[in-house]
Amino acid sequence: MARPTPLSGFPEWLPDGRIVEQHVLDTLRRVFELHGFGGIETRAVEPLDQLLRKGETSKEVYVLRRLQEEAEGNEADAARQGRADKQLGLHFDLTVPFARYVLENAGHLAFPFKRYQIQKVWRGERPQDGRFREFTQADIDVVGAGELPYHYEVELPLVMAEALGALRDIGVPEVRVLVNNRRVAEGFYRGLGIDAVDEVLRQIDKLDKVGPEKVAALLVAEAGATPEQAEACLALAAISGSDTGVVDRVRALAAEHGVVSDLLDTGLAELGALIEAASVRAPGVVVADLKIARGLDYYTGSVYETVLVGHEQLGSICSGGRYDTLASDGANTYPGVGLSIGVSRLVSRLLSAGLVRATRAVPSAVVVAVTSEETRGASDAVATALRSRGVPVEVAPAAAKFGKQIRYADRRGIPFVWFPGRVEEDGTRSPDQVKDIRSGEQVDADAATWAPPAEDLRPRVVPATD
Amino acid sequence: MARPTPLSGFPEWLPDGRIVEQHVLDTLRRVFELHGFGGIETRAVEPLDQLLRKGETSKEVYVLRRLQEEAEGNEADAARQGRADKQLGLHFDLTVPFARYVLENAGHLAFPFKRYQIQKVWRGERPQDGRFREFTQADIDVVGAGELPYHYEVELPLVMAEALGALRDIGVPEVRVLVNNRRVAEGFYRGLGIDAVDEVLRQIDKLDKVGPEKVAALLVAEAGATPEQAEACLALAAISGSDTGVVDRVRALAAEHGVVSDLLDTGLAELGALIEAASVRAPGVVVADLKIARGLDYYTGSVYETVLVGHEQLGSICSGGRYDTLASDGANTYPGVGLSIGVSRLVSRLLSAGLVRATRAVPSAVVVAVTSEETRGASDAVATALRSRGVPVEVAPAAAKFGKQIRYADRRGIPFVWFPGRVEEDGTRSPDQVKDIRSGEQVDADAATWAPPAEDLRPRVVPATD
Repeated sequence: MARPTPLSGFPEWLPDGRIVEQHVLDTLRRVFELHGFGGIETRAVEPLDQLLRKGETSKEVYVLRRLQEEAEGNEADAARQGRADKQLGLHFDLTVPFARYVLENAGHLAFPFKRYQIQKVWRGERPQDGRFREFTQADIDVVGAGELPYHYEVELPLVMAEALGALRDIGVPEVRVLVNNRRVAEGFYRGLGIDAVDEVLRQIDKLDKVGPEKVAALLVAEAGATPEQAEACLALAAISGSDTGVVDRVRALAAEHGVVSDLLDTGLAELGALIEAASVRAPGVVVADLKIARGLDYYTGSVYETVLVGHEQLGSICSGGRYDTLASDGANTYPGVGLSIGVSRLVSRLLSAGLVRATRAVPSAVVVAVTSEETRGASDAVATALRSRGVPVEVAPAAAKFGKQIRYADRRGIPFVWFPGRVEEDGTRSPDQVKDIRSGEQVDADAATWAPPAEDLRPRVVPATD
Repeated sequence: MARPTPLSGFPEWLPDGRIVEQHVLDTLRRVFELHGFGGIETRAVEPLDQLLRKGETSKEVYVLRRLQEEAEGNEADAARQGRADKQLGLHFDLTVPFARYVLENAGHLAFPFKRYQIQKVWRGERPQDGRFREFTQADIDVVGAGELPYHYEVELPLVMAEALGALRDIGVPEVRVLVNNRRVAEGFYRGLGIDAVDEVLRQIDKLDKVGPEKVAALLVAEAGATPEQAEACLALAAISGSDTGVVDRVRALAAEHGVVSDLLDTGLAELGALIEAASVRAPGVVVADLKIARGLDYYTGSVYETVLVGHEQLGSICSGGRYDTLASDGANTYPGVGLSIGVSRLVSRLLSAGLVRATRAVPSAVVVAVTSEETRGASDAVATALRSRGVPVEVAPAAAKFGKQIRYADRRGIPFVWFPGRVEEDGTRSPDQVKDIRSGEQVDADAATWAPPAEDLRPRVVPATD
């Protein structure tokens, strides 16, 4: 077997990078649970027809085939006939599987149902910086049975802002949550006389990539807008701000273009309420940005994107919105609102930009030295005593010279080496000693009581500059 | 969309079941880290040719295809020509990906390298009780560069026994780790004059399923054994015990059949050392069982299986062994030893047999009531104060009658409801109150200082009989 090489788009971290990722995941989980979100996991696969309900995403789906299924009639038939209800694909996000989970288990869930979900997802896209074929998402959603109060559209982006804010102390940059409201956009476009609302949103979504001139041309070519309508759409998209003055500017723009729309008024009232509440609960974090469109078309109210300040070109690291019809079984609908953190995108930037580091690459705080293979049992006993009080410990791999055993610890960044006492000729045992290999200080110690300083107990994740 | 139904072989848990699973995973991780194992994750996919290196497993592999790849020359060609080096499949265990990770990153790892890995794996097998198409494994392995001391073959099953033992207090039954040594089996078979060692192991592995008579016939038919040789193989497989008397019984059986083998002697010395060390460190947990074969043929020394006492028919919940040639890039080999817990098999039994339960299905310890939508901000402020001290809290979804808000908490098993004080006509605010809805007791409380009893802070996982 030749040395294997990485697969483009399928990131993996070395052990110290995984400590950073695990810290991020643990922090997100802690904040989600503090807000009452319960964890669930869904299977990695969904029936292909469910994954293809949104046509835009079909190109991204990985389809599964059992290697031996040719030998078995039914599934091979299904594959040949393209029977999407029998074929399975890997999920490309956690929202579609969550909507299915809610429908499947509605009788066993209490609504409004708040859940978080941290899992891998897969998309067969061309890999780029921050864009992977396999990546981890961390989602929160709340869904109601039949109805869902608007205040959750205020609450959820603030939970995400708090979760990402809890990572500030390890060196994660500040975040801005950019919000818009589909009703504002749709009300404004329809009021202008444009009916192809989804198409306009799709083109506006390209603003950061291709710039306003190209989008203006696309609005005319693809969405059937007049040049004047296209200009008005771009003027709306140019509005942003962190106070309710934004609402007044949209109203003024609408008046200028003769736009009258109840939908616009509803959307502006919601957007204004969100900005106002956010400015109290998390000043400066939430910014109204009327160009935020979100490509997927299941959103019906608030939409969100989140950028790392100073890393805006990385794109959104946390996106989502309000959806009203994603989960419906005919008899009941389950409207929801949720956001999804692109954990892999965030972590890969933290590591590649050298923003964050782990203080060591292994859990162990102590290596217990082994004097001879015959007395390995004594070293094991020391390790057991330390572990029983929560100290991560490993025992040296071989009874090599102590210098080599110290180098074993040093190479791993393990701060302490423990030397079991020797049994003297008269049968007494000399005291155990523990050495801080950073300072060289070596002192007598008792495995029943000694503990490392709290900051050395586990690897910590800190700003790379620390 | 009609109400969806579960996919056979792809288990999912309701929120309270997920709390049980998460507790199991957290406990395993804690014990693994106490022993110095660092966490890694590998991508879900491997090149198909790597997955197919062991012919036996090929039937289990899920192959991936991008839905649109027909449109692109290269990959479609690869698929048509069956070019397994370009095709990707989902991993069916965590050992093969780990071996690849070690080779790929050898220059960045410190050896012996100890890692744990907790991830989903996929096998296209027919689903049965405890046998899934998607399931979670929790693995520990240690690999050396070039060499790996034998004592790790003693240490690793004891780490697993400790990890599973740490689940005893939630109601997980006692475990028995059954151990054997490939060298014992191979030395004995070869000494008998049988060369088709892998074939014998494969048939012996069926003992529990089909019984000794059928296996005897298979040994004759498939492994070319004489009836006498087959009988001797079965006599070896019948030996078991938790002390080193086992070694003497194997020696006696070998002598009886005129078997002389250095390999057998080496294997017996290792097996004896393992049994002896284990009887000191974890009395009664490790049992030598000479019928343990393990189907996969990469094991070269110790092999392990683990049963839940009282649930033996569930099969092994933690298996593994020593392997010498799994990871090799020609220049270097990386021998290893590891075990893998079948977490989904374990958790599904805990839930379906009603052995374990979560004290509630949500993280929240407190629901803060909302007096009116106008004063929701005051309820949010209470929640923020409680969360800042680590108390999981949610705010009521609507300013309904208090009775309805209490029922919201009750339906979720949330023990406390918090009532913010009212602002009186003279501008003073009456004290907040908190109600234990189990006892009905309601007392004045201050969000800056109050905390629930420790046992109510988070959902706990307990024996179902508690």
